[in-house]
Amino acid sequence: MAPGSGSADGTGGMWADVAPDASRRLLLAAVDSFADLGYHGTSTRQIAAAAGMSAGALYVHYRTKADLLFQIALTVHESVLAELEGAVGGVEGHAARVRALMYAFARWHARHHRAARVIQNELGALDAAHARRIAAIRRRVRALVREEVRAGAQAGAFDVADIEGTARAMSSLAIDVCRWYRPEGPRSPEEIGALTAHLSLRMLGARPLPS
Amino acid sequence: MAPGSGSADGTGGMWADVAPDASRRLLLAAVDSFADLGYHGTSTRQIAAAAGMSAGALYVHYRTKADLLFQIALTVHESVLAELEGAVGGVEGHAARVRALMYAFARWHARHHRAARVIQNELGALDAAHARRIAAIRRRVRALVREEVRAGAQAGAFDVADIEGTARAMSSLAIDVCRWYRPEGPRSPEEIGALTAHLSLRMLGARPLPS
Repeated sequence: MAPGSGSADGTGGMWADVAPDASRRLLLAAVDSFADLGYHGTSTRQIAAAAGMSAGALYVHYRTKADLLFQIALTVHESVLAELEGAVGGVEGHAARVRALMYAFARWHARHHRAARVIQNELGALDAAHARRIAAIRRRVRALVREEVRAGAQAGAFDVADIEGTARAMSSLAIDVCRWYRPEGPRSPEEIGALTAHLSLRMLGARPLPS
Repeated sequence: MAPGSGSADGTGGMWADVAPDASRRLLLAAVDSFADLGYHGTSTRQIAAAAGMSAGALYVHYRTKADLLFQIALTVHESVLAELEGAVGGVEGHAARVRALMYAFARWHARHHRAARVIQNELGALDAAHARRIAAIRRRVRALVREEVRAGAQAGAFDVADIEGTARAMSSLAIDVCRWYRPEGPRSPEEIGALTAHLSLRMLGARPLPS
C-alpha cells in the first residue's frame, strides 16, 4: 500500500488532519522506516525515498529527523487522549466508564499498533523540549485512568488497595497490545478491547464481579 | 559502572555464566549500545569501544553484530524460562502456583528491564534461523502460563471464559514492566511482582477472591 493512502494497520484516520498531503506521506514513511530500522538507524534520505520524494523536498516540510519523530509522537499521543476522552464522555456509572475507557484504550493500540510501537520504542530519542510536551500528554492519559479507578474505589464500586499501581497495570495492559498485536492474528481490535475491559474490571474487584 | 562488573539494572546474575570475561563485557556493552541507539543504529566498532576493546578483539568473540544480538536474546530468554520453571517447581495449589509464577515473571522484568527492553524492541532484527530458536523458547514461556490457567480453570479454581486471551494478558502485564520500570521509581521489583501476582489472580476470578 502506498504511503499516505491510509494503511494496513488502520492508522489512516489518525493522520487525516495532517496537511498538506506531502507532509502526511512523509510522516507515514517515517513510521515505516523507524519501525523497520529504528530511529537512529534511519536517515532522512531513506524517509524521503520511501515517500517518493527527494531529500530536498523533505526539508520543505520538516527541518530534521527529530522534527519528524516529534510530529509522529504528537499525533499519536493526541489521538490516544482524544479517543479516551471521547470514550467516557457522557457515560455514567463507575464500571461502565472503566469498561468504555479500557475498551477504547486497548482497541486503539491494536488499530494503531505500528505507530504506537515505534513511539514506545523511540520515546528516548526525543529531544528534551519535545519530550516534555509528550510527557505532559502522557500524564493526562495516566490521570484519566487513575481518576476513574480512584472515583470508583472511593464510591465503593471497586475494591482496590493500591489505586496508583492498579491504574498503572491497566494502562500497561492496554499499551502492551501494540507490542504483540498482529493484524493477521485471530482477534480483532474490538475483541481485544472487550477482553481488556473485562479483565480491568476484574482487577478492580468491581461488584458484582463481571462474568 | 564498568561493563562486566554487574550492572545497575541487576542483570549481573544473568550474564555470570558467559565466559570468558571479554565475551561477557561485549554482551553488556552491546545491551547498553542497543538500548541507547537501537540495533540498526549501533556499529560493532561502537560496541567494542564501549567494552574498552578494539574492533579486531570483538571479532575474536562474535563474528557479527547479529551474533551479539542473538546471544543477548538467548541469554535473556533462557533466563526467563529458568526463572519461571524454578518459581513453580514444587508449589502446590492452582492459585499458589499462579502467584509464584506471576511474581517471578514481573520481578524478572523489573530486575532485567534494560536487557529485556532491548530484546522486545529488537526481536524483529534477528535473522530467520535465530528468530526460530528464540520463538521456540517464547512458546515454552507462553505455554507455562497458559497451562497454569487451563489447569486451574478445569479444576474449578479459576473462573475463566477465555483461557488463551487471559493467559496472554497475564504475560503481557508482566512483560510490559520492562517498558516502564525505572530503578529510581517508588516500587521495588518485589513489590511489582507481588502486585502483578495479585492482579493476575483477580483476572482469573480465583476463588476466594484474593484480598
